[in-house]
Amino acid sequence: MDEVGNRLAAAGFELPAPPAALGDYLPAVRAGDLVFTAGQLPLVGGVLHAAGMVGEQVPLEVAAECARVCALNALAAAATVCELGSVRRAVRLTGYIACGESFTDQPLVLDGASAVLLSAFGEDGRHAREAVGVAALPRGAPVEVSLVLHVSAR
Amino acid sequence: MDEVGNRLAAAGFELPAPPAALGDYLPAVRAGDLVFTAGQLPLVGGVLHAAGMVGEQVPLEVAAECARVCALNALAAAATVCELGSVRRAVRLTGYIACGESFTDQPLVLDGASAVLLSAFGEDGRHAREAVGVAALPRGAPVEVSLVLHVSAR
Amino acid sequence: MDEVGNRLAAAGFELPAPPAALGDYLPAVRAGDLVFTAGQLPLVGGVLHAAGMVGEQVPLEVAAECARVCALNALAAAATVCELGSVRRAVRLTGYIACGESFTDQPLVLDGASAVLLSAFGEDGRHAREAVGVAALPRGAPVEVSLVLHVSAR
Repeated sequence: MDEVGNRLAAAGFELPAPPAALGDYLPAVRAGDLVFTAGQLPLVGGVLHAAGMVGEQVPLEVAAECARVCALNALAAAATVCELGSVRRAVRLTGYIACGESFTDQPLVLDGASAVLLSAFGEDGRHAREAVGVAALPRGAPVEVSLVLHVSAR
Repeated sequence: MDEVGNRLAAAGFELPAPPAALGDYLPAVRAGDLVFTAGQLPLVGGVLHAAGMVGEQVPLEVAAECARVCALNALAAAATVCELGSVRRAVRLTGYIACGESFTDQPLVLDGASAVLLSAFGEDGRHAREAVGVAALPRGAPVEVSLVLHVSAR
Repeated sequence: MDEVGNRLAAAGFELPAPPAALGDYLPAVRAGDLVFTAGQLPLVGGVLHAAGMVGEQVPLEVAAECARVCALNALAAAATVCELGSVRRAVRLTGYIACGESFTDQPLVLDGASAVLLSAFGEDGRHAREAVGVAALPRGAPVEVSLVLHVSAR
């Protein structure tokens, strides 16, 4: 197993198979030294870890679990176009949280996703982040996460 | 007509004039070998192809048409800062869909936009994608699409 | 004071201290010649300039002030990883506006943020922009803004 896989395993995480796209797009694309992933849902074996609105059907702790699953799927997506061992830096994580207007703890949800990047890459996993509460996500997912990664030149 | 224009025409698409900005910003900016477009609305000659919430006032098929128009406008926006023939790769498409919490078919809407990129660039048009359902968009638009493209060094 | 600071001061703006993160992430990350900031809220000294939904609790003019504060915080965030004097180009501003489905003047809100970039960088501050109305933002903020900047090679 590679170093990133080892680090994830040490933190209790397992890199899944690359997620299937829900339409006519790819899980990730590399452009020069940057990798942009597609938005990833909390799918485990093709099934949502939870569904519904955060703060309503989906409690905060479950939403944070979903964010972790999204981040692992995003790493699996990135791994389709680069070696994760070549990641120089996690750059930006964007997290969309399906919620009503009274839910304002999007950052607590996304700390679940950020923890995955720190586990995978150590200090190089420290990233900028956007946290946004949105009306609805594909399949009724409570969380969607995308990544920008900076990788070593080939 | 250039090759991209020919491919689009063969698929029944026509590149519009670059869309006017709705504020103090540009349709697209180039940074090194990356082009970032502004978010594009489904404006045809300055008029929205449809208005309202997808799944309510705007049915799915019309929303997919809107996504196509957005993508064509995004290509026209990109063409203000690069030759479309110099695009090495479509990188990421972000699609915002105005909808209520019960609408979860954002991917079906955005397949309309993705089809435009595949028509324009063939295999190089295959891209990562974010699909997000949002509360509202400028002018009451049902869909907004932005692009990141990777272009050849000048 | 540096040139960017002088320009901002001439426009009546003051660069704040870098905003504290609301979770386990950084205010900005540099990847090659690009800087990606985290999403910035309209925090002044740690306190929101206003809270609530734009067009409801927060009128348009106050929302535009919030967008200005967000943009200044985003520049302060960027300054943690680059000299602002090394910015070659403002690339893309993404603005999320917390609002109900009937609010469609997101661009007028974000012109407040765009004005800050034009003040800071002059013609090089002209940028692409995404304007999106969303369900809710962290802490009940009415506006969140993130930036991508293109900086000179070190």
